[in-house]
Amino acid sequence: MTTTLPVFDPAAIETAASSQLVFDAVRDALIAHGEDRTLVPPPLHMAFPEADGDCHVKAGWITGSTDFTVKIATGFYGNHGLGLASSHGLVCVISARTGRIRAILDDRGLLTAWRTAAAGALITHTMARPDAATLAVFGTGEQARLQATWLAELRPIAAVLVHGRTVHKVNALCEQLHTAGLHARPATAQEAAAADMIITTTPATAPVLDASHVREGAHVTGIGADMPHKNELPPELFARAQLIATDDHAQCLDHGDFGHAVRAGAAAPDSDVPVGRLLKTPPDRLETAITVADLTGVGALDAALASAVLHHLPQ
Amino acid sequence: MTTTLPVFDPAAIETAASSQLVFDAVRDALIAHGEDRTLVPPPLHMAFPEADGDCHVKAGWITGSTDFTVKIATGFYGNHGLGLASSHGLVCVISARTGRIRAILDDRGLLTAWRTAAAGALITHTMARPDAATLAVFGTGEQARLQATWLAELRPIAAVLVHGRTVHKVNALCEQLHTAGLHARPATAQEAAAADMIITTTPATAPVLDASHVREGAHVTGIGADMPHKNELPPELFARAQLIATDDHAQCLDHGDFGHAVRAGAAAPDSDVPVGRLLKTPPDRLETAITVADLTGVGALDAALASAVLHHLPQ
Repeated sequence: MTTTLPVFDPAAIETAASSQLVFDAVRDALIAHGEDRTLVPPPLHMAFPEADGDCHVKAGWITGSTDFTVKIATGFYGNHGLGLASSHGLVCVISARTGRIRAILDDRGLLTAWRTAAAGALITHTMARPDAATLAVFGTGEQARLQATWLAELRPIAAVLVHGRTVHKVNALCEQLHTAGLHARPATAQEAAAADMIITTTPATAPVLDASHVREGAHVTGIGADMPHKNELPPELFARAQLIATDDHAQCLDHGDFGHAVRAGAAAPDSDVPVGRLLKTPPDRLETAITVADLTGVGALDAALASAVLHHLPQ
Repeated sequence: MTTTLPVFDPAAIETAASSQLVFDAVRDALIAHGEDRTLVPPPLHMAFPEADGDCHVKAGWITGSTDFTVKIATGFYGNHGLGLASSHGLVCVISARTGRIRAILDDRGLLTAWRTAAAGALITHTMARPDAATLAVFGTGEQARLQATWLAELRPIAAVLVHGRTVHKVNALCEQLHTAGLHARPATAQEAAAADMIITTTPATAPVLDASHVREGAHVTGIGADMPHKNELPPELFARAQLIATDDHAQCLDHGDFGHAVRAGAAAPDSDVPVGRLLKTPPDRLETAITVADLTGVGALDAALASAVLHHLPQ
């Protein structure tokens, strides 16, 4: 079983990728995507209803860059009963000059988790008030933890309010955040919605917070909606917002919280600006403005990050 | 760089796959596809015009089987100038029960070449007269060679007539076929079109043979058309045919020779039968009938073949 195709496992990838590398790659990719300097074809999708599973294949390229990526991700939700992880996948890094397959990053979803965390932290940091101090996270999964810890690398956070439906998961996340050096405590939905910065990371299909509980001057980032039936942020929040940013206009209209707001008549379909534009030129911000970012995930981020990581792996 | 993801190179794949294994997997997959027991999503496509390159990602699953596949294939046509192959790619075999990635077959296009050869040989053998003796191949590439040698595993071939546009390539292919134990000689298009069995393997964009040169009792298989602008077989041939088979009805209508014939009014859009149905139950055949098969390539064949090969590789 000899091979010349390099395969890198999660441990190797973790060694090669500093958070600075991830932040830089993701920021550059979001700016490029906002300026239409990316190629992101419609994904390929297969469903396996009998195994409660599906497979998505997403590709992306920053126009003109050396490599593009094809990412295979599966989610089989009956795996828990088999004692297996529900998510599997890999990223294939391919030369955009010759089509040669440069490497397989057998990352088990690590790179997707990092780029999602970095994108959320970057746009939250950029859109929130400079003196915003409290962060609320809705949801208790891996992204709830990563959004808080990655944002803490960009700015001080006085306290993290954790809201979730399951008490022991809320407590477990608070414990993890303590270990990471953050002050964290459980919160009701109303308390959490009153934080300076709010990040929603749930698979909810109905809004997780009440727009009237969000204070003037707050910023809200939604990262959970990735299918048309998912919805975390209420249309009324978009109606109150003075600045709305999307990571991909068409995608957020189709299956983001922004699309729900537009269909409800609470936001105009052209009322958003690209996240990348704000990262390039941070917005002037009124103290009392409410701002909202809707992230649905962009394939070009995978390309930028995988290529940057590969650059730091032994060749 | 430790890993638990098995990667198999072309040498390992070649050792594991007998032609019998390939024929069996392809026959079963074509029958399953003809009976709608396959899942083949629309492919993902990216173009890199500056490098004269593109990338296709195709997936396939035989419903109910253990594995599905995602195949990445690139073609960068400026690579010759760099001293590199123009085609690269791999096949990813994934469990349809758990979504776990079972293996990477780093086959460099070998499996696609084999399944195309096997499909052409199987349907030509099934639809041709039992006493058909002469084979003509149009084109001088790898598939011209494989179609002849793989068909020769299924039935005796008295002579192979080779037609191509470039004399030295025609001579080189005749030499290769001699080495493989076949009688082969160069032929004009008119001579070749008068053979008992005809297989076209070209990237032509206009018919490569004249329908009036095809004799009663002949069988013709077209395997070259894989895009709407490609065309090897003239509509008049379909008008003369008493039996038309397609590997995928919708695909052949969209970008096969069958589609050209239908748009020219030479064949009814419902005048074809699935290749798989004929493989399952060989047709009764009039001595004087002309028969035609149009193959455009089916993703389910990749799944069946990769899964069968993996079964014979060391785990």
